[in-house]
Amino acid sequence: MLADTLAAIVPVDDALAPAVQTRLDNLTKPPGSLGRLESLVIQLACLSGSAAPAVSPPGVIVFAADHGVAEEGVSAFPQEVTAQMVANFAAGGAAINVFARQIGARLEVVDVGVKGTVEGEGVVHDKVRPGTANFAREDAMSLAEAQCAIEVGIRAAARSHAAGCCCLIVGEMGIANTTASSALLAALSGRPVTRLVGQGTGIDISRLAHKAGVIESALAARDADPTRPMEVLVKLGGLEIAAMAGAYLGAAARRMPILVDGFIATVAALVACRLVPALRGYLIFGHRSCEPGHDVALELLEAEPLLDMQLRLGEGTGAALAFPLLEAACRMLSEMATFDSAGVAGAAPES
Amino acid sequence: MLADTLAAIVPVDDALAPAVQTRLDNLTKPPGSLGRLESLVIQLACLSGSAAPAVSPPGVIVFAADHGVAEEGVSAFPQEVTAQMVANFAAGGAAINVFARQIGARLEVVDVGVKGTVEGEGVVHDKVRPGTANFAREDAMSLAEAQCAIEVGIRAAARSHAAGCCCLIVGEMGIANTTASSALLAALSGRPVTRLVGQGTGIDISRLAHKAGVIESALAARDADPTRPMEVLVKLGGLEIAAMAGAYLGAAARRMPILVDGFIATVAALVACRLVPALRGYLIFGHRSCEPGHDVALELLEAEPLLDMQLRLGEGTGAALAFPLLEAACRMLSEMATFDSAGVAGAAPES
Repeated sequence: MLADTLAAIVPVDDALAPAVQTRLDNLTKPPGSLGRLESLVIQLACLSGSAAPAVSPPGVIVFAADHGVAEEGVSAFPQEVTAQMVANFAAGGAAINVFARQIGARLEVVDVGVKGTVEGEGVVHDKVRPGTANFAREDAMSLAEAQCAIEVGIRAAARSHAAGCCCLIVGEMGIANTTASSALLAALSGRPVTRLVGQGTGIDISRLAHKAGVIESALAARDADPTRPMEVLVKLGGLEIAAMAGAYLGAAARRMPILVDGFIATVAALVACRLVPALRGYLIFGHRSCEPGHDVALELLEAEPLLDMQLRLGEGTGAALAFPLLEAACRMLSEMATFDSAGVAGAAPES
Repeated sequence: MLADTLAAIVPVDDALAPAVQTRLDNLTKPPGSLGRLESLVIQLACLSGSAAPAVSPPGVIVFAADHGVAEEGVSAFPQEVTAQMVANFAAGGAAINVFARQIGARLEVVDVGVKGTVEGEGVVHDKVRPGTANFAREDAMSLAEAQCAIEVGIRAAARSHAAGCCCLIVGEMGIANTTASSALLAALSGRPVTRLVGQGTGIDISRLAHKAGVIESALAARDADPTRPMEVLVKLGGLEIAAMAGAYLGAAARRMPILVDGFIATVAALVACRLVPALRGYLIFGHRSCEPGHDVALELLEAEPLLDMQLRLGEGTGAALAFPLLEAACRMLSEMATFDSAGVAGAAPES
């Protein structure tokens, strides 16, 4: 399944761009005056192969998993919060539930590796293993497990597509997953760990220094080859991060636009783009988070996100908040009158 | 009416802030992790006097008027486009129609000073005069006309409030109104005109220099006292700009939150805040536009807008695009579960 998905991802073809640009310039507004909405809708048209792209209804998938590295004391929250938050997702009470309802999204929660039993109706059980190993001491997972977790993501994207979703938002829940993401980013980028780590869910400065130290030691001990993204994922990754990468790949293989969330989601996108560079054309970045590593991951992907709301929650919330901008871009193209149809005079020739 | 409205605007009282903050900190997310949404909902609660504020349905009012200064050749579009665009608003084909539909807004278009007859069903006719005088040669309007135009805005805000709208977005249409706005801002701020003027609907560099020259000459000829906002408005303003200021004042008098659009809307807000400084607490800024003067107006109001989408259209479009963020902030507060209700463990004590 993984090989087939990778092979199905074609580079985005910009053949439709000139026709969409011509239509944009005929809409009743000064040319270019809707700024980034105009470039957004051109990207949406080209990646989906439709001159009248649509993004509704969106699909939101939240992957949850635990992290062995949590036992190093890197998070402000105890590990059982992962399972408790999955139950909260199932009950509809988390931030992503609220924002998914607001945008009319189909929401799916997937247990790809939570430690212990997950409560709650409507959770998709697709567990690869009950949490990763502690990568401070050993590889986080095996190659087979990483591939399985990616396939969990591919299957979830396929379910969203089959349910009629036109745009994919991927979120996560996993205590200690900013630690795993920082480690992945440090390995892939070569940047100093102290420039990448942040407060995550809200740790204090002494715990932040401890978190950086744990990551630095693990990077030295695991010694992953930065040119081999699967090896980096196996040694330092998380099951939900692998599944997120898989969901992006599955969506791109189906020519669905992908609205990327914050730090962890962007690191997962970086891993997936290292596996398949053509994925990049399908990605739209929802927001810039407070996590310092997010800036670095965005820079490596040459991404300029839509929002900057100082968020640091995850779950897909920042992407869900940005979604109405994609919806607006599509509606602009399909619903606005043209100068001709509305009987409005165009710009006078410049003197 | 104007005096009553001004007297009814009370400074925003932050008495509700601690209770809202406590609730925010009990929701199932790390404290502070929803960033600007959290400060937004505190502002919404305090200004409206409700611990569970709501912003839906929003009201959008677009004020349209012509500008005598258009005869100086400062715009890329001919003056008749103002009336043609009003007809387009009435027919539902403009960008603001599309975005207002998306957010479920009540949309009203008010002719406060269009030159000639405006076509189209559903336009509110409340014309003060058919366009301003050319302020390059004489005062744009009389004091009585400026007061009338402000009252047009107050009445429109009252209609939105009576119709059940919980948040006000105010837009504009008027060929040459970036010229009037730049002149107002230059007079009120003392900043050099060349730092404030921009391409508006899309003029070239030679016409931009001409536009700056027209404004500089007019500022010298009109010689408005910058400490007297009504005098500045009379000498250099626009009828729709005065009406926008009036709508803000009318909304604040009713404790409605106001979502401010781009450059022209922000200059109107600056004029209104100079009249009644307590208005500022009711304003939320939707976006940062491409017009260089917008940065200056935002700085004078100590405002940090929500979006930066490189827009330069007006009509209220940038504010309408930002509206879902306000809606999300309100839903977060009212719909999310708390740690107790969801059975989720809070942050562990810092070691």
